[in-house]
Amino acid sequence: MVCELLCVGTELLLGDILNTNAQFLSREMAALGIAVLHQSTVGDNPLRLREALETALERSDIVLTSGGLGPTADDITREIACEVMGEALLADAEILAKLEAFFTARGSRMTDNNKKQALVPQNGRVLENHNGTAPGICMEKNGKCLILLPGPPRELEPMFRESVKPLLQKYADGVILSHTVHTMLLGESAMEARVRDLMDSANPTVAPYAKSGEAYLRVSAKAADLQQAERIAAPVLQELQARLGNAVYGLDCGSIEIAVVRLLAEKGKTLAVAESCTGGYLAKRITDIPGASQVFACGIVSYSNDIKRRILGVRAQTLEAYSAVSEQVACEMAQRVRQIGGADIGLAATGYAGPGEGAGLSYIAIDSEDGTRSECIQTGRTQDRDYNRYVSASRALNLVRLFLQGA
Amino acid sequence: MVCELLCVGTELLLGDILNTNAQFLSREMAALGIAVLHQSTVGDNPLRLREALETALERSDIVLTSGGLGPTADDITREIACEVMGEALLADAEILAKLEAFFTARGSRMTDNNKKQALVPQNGRVLENHNGTAPGICMEKNGKCLILLPGPPRELEPMFRESVKPLLQKYADGVILSHTVHTMLLGESAMEARVRDLMDSANPTVAPYAKSGEAYLRVSAKAADLQQAERIAAPVLQELQARLGNAVYGLDCGSIEIAVVRLLAEKGKTLAVAESCTGGYLAKRITDIPGASQVFACGIVSYSNDIKRRILGVRAQTLEAYSAVSEQVACEMAQRVRQIGGADIGLAATGYAGPGEGAGLSYIAIDSEDGTRSECIQTGRTQDRDYNRYVSASRALNLVRLFLQGA
Repeated sequence: MVCELLCVGTELLLGDILNTNAQFLSREMAALGIAVLHQSTVGDNPLRLREALETALERSDIVLTSGGLGPTADDITREIACEVMGEALLADAEILAKLEAFFTARGSRMTDNNKKQALVPQNGRVLENHNGTAPGICMEKNGKCLILLPGPPRELEPMFRESVKPLLQKYADGVILSHTVHTMLLGESAMEARVRDLMDSANPTVAPYAKSGEAYLRVSAKAADLQQAERIAAPVLQELQARLGNAVYGLDCGSIEIAVVRLLAEKGKTLAVAESCTGGYLAKRITDIPGASQVFACGIVSYSNDIKRRILGVRAQTLEAYSAVSEQVACEMAQRVRQIGGADIGLAATGYAGPGEGAGLSYIAIDSEDGTRSECIQTGRTQDRDYNRYVSASRALNLVRLFLQGA
Repeated sequence: MVCELLCVGTELLLGDILNTNAQFLSREMAALGIAVLHQSTVGDNPLRLREALETALERSDIVLTSGGLGPTADDITREIACEVMGEALLADAEILAKLEAFFTARGSRMTDNNKKQALVPQNGRVLENHNGTAPGICMEKNGKCLILLPGPPRELEPMFRESVKPLLQKYADGVILSHTVHTMLLGESAMEARVRDLMDSANPTVAPYAKSGEAYLRVSAKAADLQQAERIAAPVLQELQARLGNAVYGLDCGSIEIAVVRLLAEKGKTLAVAESCTGGYLAKRITDIPGASQVFACGIVSYSNDIKRRILGVRAQTLEAYSAVSEQVACEMAQRVRQIGGADIGLAATGYAGPGEGAGLSYIAIDSEDGTRSECIQTGRTQDRDYNRYVSASRALNLVRLFLQGA
C-alpha cells in the first residue's frame, strides 16, 4: 500500500503559511505503517489540481488531500475530485440542516455560498467536521482510496484521528516503529563511519541526520505489530549504542536539555548557571522543560567583565591575566555560581558568539564537589551567532550529562 | 517564468521534520515576482527523485531543490540531478581544500565520505556554503535553471539570500516589494477593524497576519522597479502607522528585541533583567542581537523565592504578603536588578508559565529614574508553556520600547 499527500492552496505556494498538515499526515501514516512516497502542493487552480490528482491516483493506492473544501469560489477540491473519480455530487439534506444550525447557533444567517459544503459524491462517505463547517469526504473506487480533508489544522487533525484512522486500518499491513538515537560530540560523517555497515540493513533501516551541531540516527522497523517491530529494532539499537558509547545522550529524548533535566531530577541534584556568550540561552533551554524548577537553582547572565567581577565574584587578576574568554574564567564562573546559587553543580560558558573574526570559540566549565572540569569549543562558524550560542549551550549541558552519568 | 520546488528527504515523508524550506523559498520567490506553481517532496530514493526532477524540469523554467547534498550514502541529489541534466561530475580542488580546512579548524580529520561534497558539474556554478560543508550548485542549460540547495535551513537560507537571489534577478519580470508593520498590544481582528478599508487595495496589497501574540500587516507593491514599488507602498504605510499609533513597534524590524536593542543603543541606555517565569528567555532574546553587549548589563534568573531574596534582595515580607507572582514582586525585582546591574533600566517578569491551572498569568515591571511601572498579562493559554514565556518576554520588552519612546 502506497500513499501520497496532495495539499491544495495558493497561500502555501506564496509561503504565507507553513505546511504543518504535511508533517502531521505523514507522521500519522508512518505510525499506521503506510508508506508516504510523495507530498505535493498545488494552488487553487482547476487545471493543475486535476493533473496533480490524476498523477497521484495513478501511482498511489491512497491519496489524502487537504484544503479547498470551504465555501468560497476558490474552494474547488470537492468538485475536481468528483470529476476525476467519475462521481456525481448530490446535495445532502442532513449536512445542509447541520450547516444551518451551525450559523443559527452563532446568531448569523448562512450565506448561499456555504451550501456547496453540503454536496457529497453519490458513492462517497462523509467525514464529520466537529470543528468547522466543511465535512471531509472519502471515496473508494477501482482499488483506489481518495480522502478529502479540510485545510485548517484544527479541523483536519481531529477529523483524521476520529474518522480517517479507523477507516485506513484495513489498508495498514503492519506498523512502522521509529526510534532516534541522539548523539553529541560526533559529527554526522564521523558517526556514519562508525556504523556504516548497519546502515545497509533493510529492516530495521538506519538513517543518520544532523541538526544544530548534533547527529542523530533513526532506526525504523516494519512489522505486523508494535511488539514484533520492537523486537526487530532492539538488537540494532543496542549495537548502535555500544559502538557510539558515551557520545549517545539519549534515545527518543527530544533534546539534551530534556535529558539533563531528567537526569538531575533522578539524581536529586540542582544546577546553577553563569553565562557570558550564551546570554541566557542555557537558562532558557533548561527552563523550557516543565518541572525544571525542581532542579534549576539560578542563572546569572554576566556579559561584561564588571558584572563578572561584581555579581559573580570572578577575580580581577584572572580576568586580566587570561581575558574573559578563557578556561580559567569559565572555571571561576562555574565555581562561583555554584556557591552563590547553593547548588550541587555549577555550569558556565564564556566565548565569542559573533558575528566576527574569532567567533565560534568558547570555553565551558562544570564545577561540583568532585572538582572543576572545562572544555574548549570551536564551531568554526564566525558568522553564525545563533548557532555558536546554541552549540555552546548544548555542549555545556552535555558536560552535566556526562558528569551525572559518571562518564 | 514558472518555478517549482522539490524537497528531498525521507525524514520529510516520515513527518520527522517540518518543511520550513518550502515556506521560506516560496516566500522569497514571491518577493522576486516569480510564480511557484508546484511544491513536491520525495524521499532519498534514486528512482522517484529522477522522475520528480524530470517532471519538474518539463513543466517549469526554474527548479529549486533542497536536501540530499551531504556526505552520507543517502545523499543523492547531486548525482541524480547531474544525470538528468546530462552533466559530468568533477572533483573541485578548491572545495576539497576548504572541506579539509573546515575539519582541521575543528581539530578533527575529514572522513572519506565527505569528499563527494567537492564534486561539481562540469558546466555548473558552485554556490558557497558559509554555514556548512555542502556547497550549492546552479546549472543553466536548454532554457532551464536547476538550483540545488542544502537541506538544513541555517545553510539554505543564507545561501539563497547571498547567491541565489542575485542569480535569479534576471528571471524576474518586475519586482514585488514587501514591507511589514509590526504591532504589539492589538489582536489580529482589532488591528483589522482599524484598517479594514485599506485591505481592499489591489496594489499595494495589505494583508494581516498574527504570530506568537503579535499582529503584523504586510504591504506588498508590484512595479517595474524597486523605486516605483516604494512610491506605491509609501502612502499606505504612512496611513497604517498613523491609524495604529504606538501599537506599532517597528517597520521591517524583525522582532521586538531588535527594536529594543536599537532604541537602547540610540539613547545610550543600559538594561538589566530579572526573570522568574521567563527563565532566561528575556536575556536570551536580547543577547540574540549582535551588539547587545553595548546595552545589556546583566540578567538574573531567579526561579525560587530563596534566590529572589538572596541574590536579588526582594524583601521576604513582599514575597509573603503578595506571593512570588504579583505586581509587587515584579516591581521589586525590576528595582533591585537595576541597582545590582548598575543599569539605566531594570526589567522583570514573574508568572506561571505552565502547563497547568492558572498558567498564562504573569506580571512584568520596568524601573528607571522616572519610577516603576508594571503590567498584568493573561494569555489565557494554560497548556502552552513556550507561548506564555515568549509573550511575557515580548510584552516586557515592549515596556522598554514604550518607555524609550516616551509613550
